[in-house]
Amino acid sequence: MSNILVIGAGRSATALIGYVLTQAKKHNWNVTVCDNNLELAQQKVAGHSNGRAAWLDVMKVNDRRDLIGRADVVVSLLPAFLHIEVAHDCIRLKKHLITASYVSKEMYQLGDDAAERDLIFMGEMGLDPGIDHMSAMQKIDEIKEKGGKLTAFRSYTGGLIAPECNDNPWNYKFTWNPRNVVLAGQGTAQYREDGKLKYIPYNRLFADAVPIEIDGVAGEYEAYANRDSLLYRVTYGLKGIPTLLRGTIRNRGYCEAWNALVKIGLTDGSYPILHSHKLTYHALMEAYVGSEHKGNTVKERIADLLGIDVKSDIMHKLEWLGLFSKKKINLQNATPALILENLLLDKWKLQPEDKDMILMQHQFEYELDGKKRLLTSTLVMRGAGSHDTAMARLVGLPMGIFVKLVLEGRITQKGVNIPVMKEVYEPVLEELKEFGVEFTEKDELVGG
Amino acid sequence: MSNILVIGAGRSATALIGYVLTQAKKHNWNVTVCDNNLELAQQKVAGHSNGRAAWLDVMKVNDRRDLIGRADVVVSLLPAFLHIEVAHDCIRLKKHLITASYVSKEMYQLGDDAAERDLIFMGEMGLDPGIDHMSAMQKIDEIKEKGGKLTAFRSYTGGLIAPECNDNPWNYKFTWNPRNVVLAGQGTAQYREDGKLKYIPYNRLFADAVPIEIDGVAGEYEAYANRDSLLYRVTYGLKGIPTLLRGTIRNRGYCEAWNALVKIGLTDGSYPILHSHKLTYHALMEAYVGSEHKGNTVKERIADLLGIDVKSDIMHKLEWLGLFSKKKINLQNATPALILENLLLDKWKLQPEDKDMILMQHQFEYELDGKKRLLTSTLVMRGAGSHDTAMARLVGLPMGIFVKLVLEGRITQKGVNIPVMKEVYEPVLEELKEFGVEFTEKDELVGG
Repeated sequence: MSNILVIGAGRSATALIGYVLTQAKKHNWNVTVCDNNLELAQQKVAGHSNGRAAWLDVMKVNDRRDLIGRADVVVSLLPAFLHIEVAHDCIRLKKHLITASYVSKEMYQLGDDAAERDLIFMGEMGLDPGIDHMSAMQKIDEIKEKGGKLTAFRSYTGGLIAPECNDNPWNYKFTWNPRNVVLAGQGTAQYREDGKLKYIPYNRLFADAVPIEIDGVAGEYEAYANRDSLLYRVTYGLKGIPTLLRGTIRNRGYCEAWNALVKIGLTDGSYPILHSHKLTYHALMEAYVGSEHKGNTVKERIADLLGIDVKSDIMHKLEWLGLFSKKKINLQNATPALILENLLLDKWKLQPEDKDMILMQHQFEYELDGKKRLLTSTLVMRGAGSHDTAMARLVGLPMGIFVKLVLEGRITQKGVNIPVMKEVYEPVLEELKEFGVEFTEKDELVGG
Repeated sequence: MSNILVIGAGRSATALIGYVLTQAKKHNWNVTVCDNNLELAQQKVAGHSNGRAAWLDVMKVNDRRDLIGRADVVVSLLPAFLHIEVAHDCIRLKKHLITASYVSKEMYQLGDDAAERDLIFMGEMGLDPGIDHMSAMQKIDEIKEKGGKLTAFRSYTGGLIAPECNDNPWNYKFTWNPRNVVLAGQGTAQYREDGKLKYIPYNRLFADAVPIEIDGVAGEYEAYANRDSLLYRVTYGLKGIPTLLRGTIRNRGYCEAWNALVKIGLTDGSYPILHSHKLTYHALMEAYVGSEHKGNTVKERIADLLGIDVKSDIMHKLEWLGLFSKKKINLQNATPALILENLLLDKWKLQPEDKDMILMQHQFEYELDGKKRLLTSTLVMRGAGSHDTAMARLVGLPMGIFVKLVLEGRITQKGVNIPVMKEVYEPVLEELKEFGVEFTEKDELVGG
């Protein structure tokens, strides 16, 4: 029998645990799920005969090593900064390790140690990063194999609310980490266009969002550039590609309204609003207008500050959030970003019956036989409700499938990796189809 | 005989050294000027019989202590972060210390040690900070003494080019630290208005500049808020004042054009432009426009990005800087801020015959005998040329005068201080008049 250890039983673990437990009997697996909330681990195991729940405070080194020592494969769903502790144990105890998080520099430095011990350390094995790597690499390899020459690669992903559950003016609800949504894009986005490096500072990022077309789903969409577009240039084998862009998808109109929040100053997490618990949201907004902003009401003065009509769609979105309400802010000396996050948590909460939706689109421009072509590969995937989101499934299933591949001995590449190899992406993408994860493709000639 | 040690003989030391040498014979002073450039120190001493030049590498602890040990008063003109080393020596060797820099937390922590040893550690004894403190406190104390109640205090300072030497479209040249000009305002400005805290994020700071009226000088002016408006609330005895704002003065039109540089992304010092030495300024500007910015030329696309006409005044200012020129950038992997600074150093260079000009204006709103009044106190001061700037004089003279007060035993307040006490501001402001540093005042009823 093989032993699988899953560390962390939170929201993002549901689909993964479900997958490995379902396959456990057939493959003769024991699955141990540990968490510092034992009840949560027990809920997820749900009395499955091949499953076991365990309590673990991950900072208790001996307990952690005891559990890891008895496993063959470890899946870490811990917060990203904690993976490295688990990774050191896995090196010492010779265990394979799988995560869905970005691979840190510290983790990459363990690559030789892992390879020497014949260990598989796979990171970025979730949705984004994860399925984006695999689905992109499959197409990139296909285009290259048939002799095509890639000239542009654009890749967009969005975790959204399904159009039919879309009942607020922002066309957005939280289906993942709210903090990341509030702080998204801070810094400077970099990408390549027509062979040239491009930069977009945060102050223009949301103003410069571009419309994108997604077939097969209701609604209109737009995308803003990610900070990291150039990160995978070499890993993807696209070193010389003239155009390379990664972006985040939102419903159309979201970005210009979010840009208003940026412009007002509400996404800043670097300083506290003194005595914020004594202020109302209305008073907070008033703190951002000065004597140079004209109008009779704070709302009119904010509209003036933004240079828009007080009856505009953007102002309607701000008002709907409750930013002009006389309700007290329930946080002491909090940063603007935290106050905003707290407000959005309530306003953008996924309701039990709400279905989320993942959109992913890759656009490959390439030349084949002297002709220019555009291959568009699109994934539209809905969740079943707030407790079984498409997001959690698409993060968890690739890890679950990969666990199986490891235990079946089908992975030859050792050391620290991300899933860009055919031996990984082919079987994973193939099995994902059984769960309704299927890209639709369009490959067409462009121009004359 | 008393011994004065001046550490640092750079540009900002000229007026100070001139002052103490001129007074040296009369008061029986020996003045030692040290610098790691001996020739520079010799130039400044200029063979004066009471002066001596010395070579000092300030990081050589023994040399430094040797010089400090032989002094009665030490004036440090070192970069701000180095004052603390000198301060520790001054504690150990029981010497008074004077600087024109902001007093750091570490420096304030030496307050008790200095006071116990009867030492005077005076910081912020230059122009801004310095003359601003003294001239403001004089008026604040006067208003309070006659029974007035302050309701608003606004204070603005600008280091500018004299209108008659103003020959570029920005109406600005560098008369002080260029780096500080390029990075000015990054973060969030905070001030008080009508009893309420106000915040202005960097992305709006220059867009939200307000016009201000300066009598007695040609030209039109505007001001943007400083980050630190609330810093001196308690020190100035203005804890409960409803309106409190400090700002920086520029010629009108400067701020909206600077805001264009901010919006494009050119003031960011947090990331390098890869291979910047291979780019032209034109190519750099091109790196900031994306496919969503329309136009045939990079200039047109930048205008589109800024949402302004390509023939507008702002675009003229950008073009005048050479931002659309095909000249190569002479810096390797430099940040946008450094590239911009480097360009401006050339374009905004003070020519030998150019006169700089300091503007300072305090506005005090107060109630007296049931009536609302506005007292405006304004300083306009021109320099003599690029080697004898008003800036250097107004930074150096207050320190020089204060050295005299210390050696005459007229300063009773020991420990770490800034110049807000009457025993300091009265004699300093009085003597500054002899150098043409005189505020003009207007005190008038406001409203009905």
